[in-house]
Amino acid sequence: MNYRISDKFVSLKPSAIREIFKSLGTPGSISFAAGNPNPDSFPVADMRRFADEIFSSDPVTALQYGITEGYTPLRKLVADRLKRVYNIGAPDDDLIIVTGGQQGIELTCKVMCNEGDTVVCENPSFIGALNAFRSLGANLRGVPLTDRGIDPEKLEEVLKSDPKVKFLYTIPTFQNPAGITADFETRKAVLALAEKYDILILEDNPYGDLRFSGEDVPTYKSMDRDGRVIYCGSFSKVLSSGMRIGFLCANRDILSKIVVAKQVEDVHTNVFFQMVCAKYLSECDLEAHIAGIRNMYRHKAGLMISALEENMPASVSFTRPEGGIFLWCSLPEGKSLDEFVKRAGEKNVFVVPGTAFTADPAEPSRSFRLNYSMPTDEEIVRGIKILADIARDMGCE
Amino acid sequence: MNYRISDKFVSLKPSAIREIFKSLGTPGSISFAAGNPNPDSFPVADMRRFADEIFSSDPVTALQYGITEGYTPLRKLVADRLKRVYNIGAPDDDLIIVTGGQQGIELTCKVMCNEGDTVVCENPSFIGALNAFRSLGANLRGVPLTDRGIDPEKLEEVLKSDPKVKFLYTIPTFQNPAGITADFETRKAVLALAEKYDILILEDNPYGDLRFSGEDVPTYKSMDRDGRVIYCGSFSKVLSSGMRIGFLCANRDILSKIVVAKQVEDVHTNVFFQMVCAKYLSECDLEAHIAGIRNMYRHKAGLMISALEENMPASVSFTRPEGGIFLWCSLPEGKSLDEFVKRAGEKNVFVVPGTAFTADPAEPSRSFRLNYSMPTDEEIVRGIKILADIARDMGCE
Repeated sequence: MNYRISDKFVSLKPSAIREIFKSLGTPGSISFAAGNPNPDSFPVADMRRFADEIFSSDPVTALQYGITEGYTPLRKLVADRLKRVYNIGAPDDDLIIVTGGQQGIELTCKVMCNEGDTVVCENPSFIGALNAFRSLGANLRGVPLTDRGIDPEKLEEVLKSDPKVKFLYTIPTFQNPAGITADFETRKAVLALAEKYDILILEDNPYGDLRFSGEDVPTYKSMDRDGRVIYCGSFSKVLSSGMRIGFLCANRDILSKIVVAKQVEDVHTNVFFQMVCAKYLSECDLEAHIAGIRNMYRHKAGLMISALEENMPASVSFTRPEGGIFLWCSLPEGKSLDEFVKRAGEKNVFVVPGTAFTADPAEPSRSFRLNYSMPTDEEIVRGIKILADIARDMGCE
Repeated sequence: MNYRISDKFVSLKPSAIREIFKSLGTPGSISFAAGNPNPDSFPVADMRRFADEIFSSDPVTALQYGITEGYTPLRKLVADRLKRVYNIGAPDDDLIIVTGGQQGIELTCKVMCNEGDTVVCENPSFIGALNAFRSLGANLRGVPLTDRGIDPEKLEEVLKSDPKVKFLYTIPTFQNPAGITADFETRKAVLALAEKYDILILEDNPYGDLRFSGEDVPTYKSMDRDGRVIYCGSFSKVLSSGMRIGFLCANRDILSKIVVAKQVEDVHTNVFFQMVCAKYLSECDLEAHIAGIRNMYRHKAGLMISALEENMPASVSFTRPEGGIFLWCSLPEGKSLDEFVKRAGEKNVFVVPGTAFTADPAEPSRSFRLNYSMPTDEEIVRGIKILADIARDMGCE
């Protein structure tokens, strides 16, 4: 039969990053295209022990239907940590467990936006979030990033001109893809604009724990005075991404609707891994574990930055992230990103072109994303040299 | 701030069944309200062993991001079993893993329906599916169930009058909530109508493996000639509901869109439990395990039916399911369901009123759902006596 796909999905494409992964796997290839945590960050021995304890002491709770809001002990432990580490959690706030941060993002848009409402985002931004908003019929308006975070003046231009804006989606800390962190002044200005134009802020903070240099900047949620910020967090980058455990902290009036939305999407999140996380948070030292991941990524980011400084022509600029897993390179004017990415692929070095992250997919880009959490030290050094040779070969100076 | 919730969610309520659960937990109370499998159906020892093997031999695959379509060995094993047991799987079909059958239902509607499109369902039907369709802005049209399944004549009236129907949602086997199985004649007539009016069928079959009497009836999917049927299955009722593993089998043109929709909802389903399921399917005898569950439910259903026959006034009718976990009772005309359910609750016996399952929430009902998979034998006998006393006390003869 002829299928009549819904208007929203008939043209929606899978993530470009996904398609790049299909080219990987050639022996000797180097991928800077991933968004994955390094597997050394998974606490395998602890999880193995907890799994055995759970199957021995409380298998029925782990394997039976659970409640949509999440496993109660885990909700409490996560809320306690958010308060302790980030000063997050107002008296009217609540916290629910979601099936990875991705679900938290998608549910927020589903519950807040009608088709045709506007979501403002950083330009560039996380493709998984942008596609989630598109899949729900929201219009995207991108606001340029500066090296201090989203540009408040450009943000105000959008808010002034578009009365249909429901929320700003932002990754203020170690942004994906740019690796940039919004400074405190920027955050104050953005929050003031959200108050002035009465919009929500969806603060996506999957990398916030991964600072390896510089000083922490307060989260939007900790600065929130009137329940305007929805905070989305995740264990994907500190315990395991494959288990799919994230969380949302927000005003309970919003969360009560998000719970209804989650109930019809997947009833509840895998209970067993919620119990594993609860055991980890109560019996292990998560902060010490995270300190180990920070050391690993400090080393890898440093290695990549050194390799770029030593090898890359000066006209190719790049960000110097203080945490997270990405940095962002830009070719000089007049150079073709398509050609650069194609030539890199021919040399078996894979990067994600900036066009994968633009709010408007037709918008051109001269930038590309580099991931340093997954490649080995040797791959980082060798891969950056190959990219630098290509840039030089293309006439970058 | 004042939250402006989206039109679709501003009025959507949590499942009524969920609310009933909040009243449970009183010592001595008897719940016939659940939709849960009996925990004796969870193969705990095997899962414990597989968990240890996975954490020992391949922890990185289990804990790292996976692909949206699902863990490849599991997809193959499930497709093989569907072919072997149900003769399901055409050359143009594919199979993906979803986060429980609930996600399969929701994604199908998301990808196929625009707001204002119509989904036809049995009346009564599974509230989780009905709420999923509502949450996506679909209009619901309920078609009455007979004891042979959905009424084809009434179905044709709807299809004739409503050109916006995109698909029929049906649970043809051991239906939730009614326990009814559509016979072969009904299925042939319904499939012919789907062809005549060019609509899809979403066949939801979470209970199909749980037949304890009578003969199997072919699935719609096995009778499908032109890629019209989307088949949704689940391990929730045979291995574990809390792990959230289900699957969709459909034409690959539909599934390729559903994969995009799943990617923006939760990226992929928990990998570890996909690996546990794959180990179970390849190393254990699932059919023998299911035979054990069938024996347990045959006994419990038989006990409940005997108790109803012995105690319930003759004017209270009930279905006699050949499988699954529910049966459906109806009070005679003129009796108040509200009063019956309220009195039962006062005696600490909990049932789900039929109003929770109607396509139109304002539609009155005289029926209620009884679950027999969760209560003990003693609770079944004692609880049905209490319900029979209330019916008699309300003047049922």
